[in-house]
Amino acid sequence: MRIAELSRRSAVPVATIKYYQREGLLPPGELTSPNQARYDERHLDRLRLVRALIEVGRLPVATVRELLAFLDQSEMNPHYKLGKVLRTVTAARSGSPGEADEAVAAGTKEVEALIERRGWQVAPGAPARRTLAEALAALRRVGGDDIADLIDEYAALAERVAAIDLRLVRSRATPEAMVYGALLGETLGDTMFTALRWLAQEDASARALDTGAPRVP
Amino acid sequence: MRIAELSRRSAVPVATIKYYQREGLLPPGELTSPNQARYDERHLDRLRLVRALIEVGRLPVATVRELLAFLDQSEMNPHYKLGKVLRTVTAARSGSPGEADEAVAAGTKEVEALIERRGWQVAPGAPARRTLAEALAALRRVGGDDIADLIDEYAALAERVAAIDLRLVRSRATPEAMVYGALLGETLGDTMFTALRWLAQEDASARALDTGAPRVP
Repeated sequence: MRIAELSRRSAVPVATIKYYQREGLLPPGELTSPNQARYDERHLDRLRLVRALIEVGRLPVATVRELLAFLDQSEMNPHYKLGKVLRTVTAARSGSPGEADEAVAAGTKEVEALIERRGWQVAPGAPARRTLAEALAALRRVGGDDIADLIDEYAALAERVAAIDLRLVRSRATPEAMVYGALLGETLGDTMFTALRWLAQEDASARALDTGAPRVP
Repeated sequence: MRIAELSRRSAVPVATIKYYQREGLLPPGELTSPNQARYDERHLDRLRLVRALIEVGRLPVATVRELLAFLDQSEMNPHYKLGKVLRTVTAARSGSPGEADEAVAAGTKEVEALIERRGWQVAPGAPARRTLAEALAALRRVGGDDIADLIDEYAALAERVAAIDLRLVRSRATPEAMVYGALLGETLGDTMFTALRWLAQEDASARALDTGAPRVP
């Protein structure tokens, strides 16, 4: 297909497709003349994935480029690849480390105690430890102690969400499909869960206020 | 206090404090000489909040400016203010609407059916509806049907998370404190839950693989 059809079938504007190509997110088409290229279904699939990760998963272009590079490495051990993909998403979503002040040190101790209490097996260097420590530190710095103090209740539910996440990944047929499924779950699946939480909050709020009217004007 | 002390106590570099001031996120200090200003505890509180929303809540500067304007409007009805604050966060986290193609139309129907099944009270114009419809559409476009199909299981857990969220907000003493608590929950609390999910995933994965070794290399 030509770029116009690729655009139509993906609902991605031609200018955006060209931008993705310049950014190395989409391989070039097969040149049929100096000014025209032909694309196939693999281009369409890749384009849809790129679009979804950027627009719905809210990932930066550089992160998507990194993720695609992992997906495309056919000789990489799938277990290792899965770890790399998840770490890449986590790192992009966590931002750069902040100042390691006293509050973060206290948050880190809280995280260690939580992991101990729940008996979680988590690598010492897992970036999620730092993300959680910084979130706790931030909450305690700005008057959100009541939120930080409920960490065990939230952790118990996070465990149940993670159990569904893992069941989904493991039900996929091949190691490659598992890696791909984990990527989708960690990005688009995360957006899905956040939106569900917002809807459920609005419902809970409407019920609590008992006005019959939705909370949000 | 002078800006150097403000910087030390907040762990925010002086250059960043000045940037926040230029962006209208922090009010000016009281000028004590043409080149020197004095700051008080309110500046420190505001600076810590701005820092946390940007670095941990991952919100854009423009969104934080908008949120602070709502928080500072003392004459606004708190119920209305709460709605504005949550909509502002939701809008920033959802991005701009994508192409409303067939997949999104199908996703919208799925969302309506879900809301009906669960008996949720949600305003017809709630942005979370569109976010969820686009997430479902994206999942189905890129081979994540298995994830989208588990929406009811995720929704049941999202309800339980939202119940904790709402309990926290309602336990706060004043309407202003409730609005502030909702803002913290929706931003820093969301980061906390996401990090908990990552940790729980790593644990579930380590147990499933039964190697004793953590999943992430």
